[in-house]
Amino acid sequence: MLETTPAGVEFELSQFFSESRARATEYGSHYLALWDALEEAATGGKRVRPTLVLTAFSGLGGVDMALAGQVAVSFELLHTAFVIHDDVIDRDLARRGVANIAGRFTDRAFAHGAEPDQAAVWATAAGILAGDLALSEAHRILARLPIAGDMRVRLLDLLDRAVFVSAAGELADVTNALAQHPPGMDDVVATLDQKTAVYSFEAPLQAGAVLAAASDEDIATLGRFGRLVGIAFQLTDDLLGIFGDSTKTGKSVTADLREGKQTALLAHARSVPGWDVIDPLVGKRDLTEAEAQRARQHLTECGARHRVESLAREYAARAIDELERSALPAALRGKLATLAGSSVERSR
Amino acid sequence: MLETTPAGVEFELSQFFSESRARATEYGSHYLALWDALEEAATGGKRVRPTLVLTAFSGLGGVDMALAGQVAVSFELLHTAFVIHDDVIDRDLARRGVANIAGRFTDRAFAHGAEPDQAAVWATAAGILAGDLALSEAHRILARLPIAGDMRVRLLDLLDRAVFVSAAGELADVTNALAQHPPGMDDVVATLDQKTAVYSFEAPLQAGAVLAAASDEDIATLGRFGRLVGIAFQLTDDLLGIFGDSTKTGKSVTADLREGKQTALLAHARSVPGWDVIDPLVGKRDLTEAEAQRARQHLTECGARHRVESLAREYAARAIDELERSALPAALRGKLATLAGSSVERSR
Repeated sequence: MLETTPAGVEFELSQFFSESRARATEYGSHYLALWDALEEAATGGKRVRPTLVLTAFSGLGGVDMALAGQVAVSFELLHTAFVIHDDVIDRDLARRGVANIAGRFTDRAFAHGAEPDQAAVWATAAGILAGDLALSEAHRILARLPIAGDMRVRLLDLLDRAVFVSAAGELADVTNALAQHPPGMDDVVATLDQKTAVYSFEAPLQAGAVLAAASDEDIATLGRFGRLVGIAFQLTDDLLGIFGDSTKTGKSVTADLREGKQTALLAHARSVPGWDVIDPLVGKRDLTEAEAQRARQHLTECGARHRVESLAREYAARAIDELERSALPAALRGKLATLAGSSVERSR
Repeated sequence: MLETTPAGVEFELSQFFSESRARATEYGSHYLALWDALEEAATGGKRVRPTLVLTAFSGLGGVDMALAGQVAVSFELLHTAFVIHDDVIDRDLARRGVANIAGRFTDRAFAHGAEPDQAAVWATAAGILAGDLALSEAHRILARLPIAGDMRVRLLDLLDRAVFVSAAGELADVTNALAQHPPGMDDVVATLDQKTAVYSFEAPLQAGAVLAAASDEDIATLGRFGRLVGIAFQLTDDLLGIFGDSTKTGKSVTADLREGKQTALLAHARSVPGWDVIDPLVGKRDLTEAEAQRARQHLTECGARHRVESLAREYAARAIDELERSALPAALRGKLATLAGSSVERSR
């Protein structure tokens, strides 16, 4: 199994929020509420990125788990920042059915007698600022690590690349949703890679390896593996967003359709006959369960589901190939192969 | 006179953008356009923060101006990030009459055939991402400085405080604009302090001093001086936003009134008889020049203008007091006293 996130990571996070709240007190109750909302946003995730940092670190001979835990927290807060800003961009007030920062501040604004438009401005401000605070802490943690200068620069370069490529991916994602010419399969996969695989898989694995003073070859292998497995995960997420069991995944199976999200499934469906069957259902805000069922049936019958499942398996297999051809320690290879397997075999 | 921003700062900035554009090329024309827009946003400012870093640094015996230039660029990019995110929060499409990042991406969206609502989403995304990129680079520059660990930690702490307090101030500013009970003078001054004085004056001056290995006493003096002079500058900005000469300041003298910005002038006017004269003009989107003139006349007659001018002078005088009681080198004291004087004697 993968390295489980040690209590140290949770402790570091809760310590950071507790200190920040203490500092926030002198700036009034709204700022305190912002920090509460930020902590809430950073809580309860699957800690995928910390787990990857720690797995690579310990698998490559790293010993100081407290140090690796700091790097793990940095990548978790980077993720928190991106999720929060993504929600602002998408104008979402909830994530997985729970009020997000904008949702909480919208409620708070109404409780203070605000008009709807005022509440929206306040909610946007809260989301943007909370993301900025999380992003800043992600940088600050790496900048303060008590390690040699060249190692710190390498970690900072990984973080820099993660921010740079994710911004490109987020912009591409928004562009795909708006474009007059919807994206093809290659565009969708490139966007998944840029928006998520680099910062969520490549960077945390490589950061753990750099901190363990791994060889350049091992670091490069982990980067290639991370991007491939990251794409496999994201393609599987697209599948779960339509065909999943929401009681298991916690993820709505109508939201992607309602929002008209340009997924790999739709990219395939658009490229084969029968698109007119599903076209009116994509982006239909008041989509019924019966209509969602019809969309699912079409996405199965037109081959989209099969195509995306195959593609996800193909990326997972390529990820495992990278491991097999590598000089990584056998134990680490085993753990990462399990991860690659689970990327396409998650609860549906 | 203050240290003029050396060509080095402009060179570092243009170098950063040139490298970033080269990296962005592989992510398509929209991402390249985002970097162009970000460079535009970082260009043409008065470089107040770099000037303060360099003035404190050289005034306290600092020698390596290239190193100080890096810190100067960090604080300039922090400012760029805050301005960009502030514009997103305020839904502004222009700054000082020129299209900002959101404005440029709105135009770009329309040129690509987007609907108005789609264009707004795209513009918000561009603004949020551009701010994130500038904020990240501000952190990265300090994190990579080739200096001793304890000095880097002190600089990082200044940046951390700047981000933390500015976020509180930005939230307070938005809250003031929405509140059912408009802010009094104390609230307005506290918000100016938090939103601007700390990151724009206190932090750059202290960073220059830390980098010059100044004494704790000198660093503390510069912090107190910075906040006082920062408030004097911001109060003067409130005055210029109503009574200024827009051909000299480049700043509209109706925008603050139209937006209903909760300035120190309004805080005073609200506290004295005659508020009903000006109340209907505050936040009036279609305010005419004649109405603006009537508002100006009222703000003069009710004593608001005089009160805010006095208050600005009082803060500038307190800032100069800090210098006179300090152990700062005479030459630096002279330069900073000139700065404090100019804070209240800018072109109207």
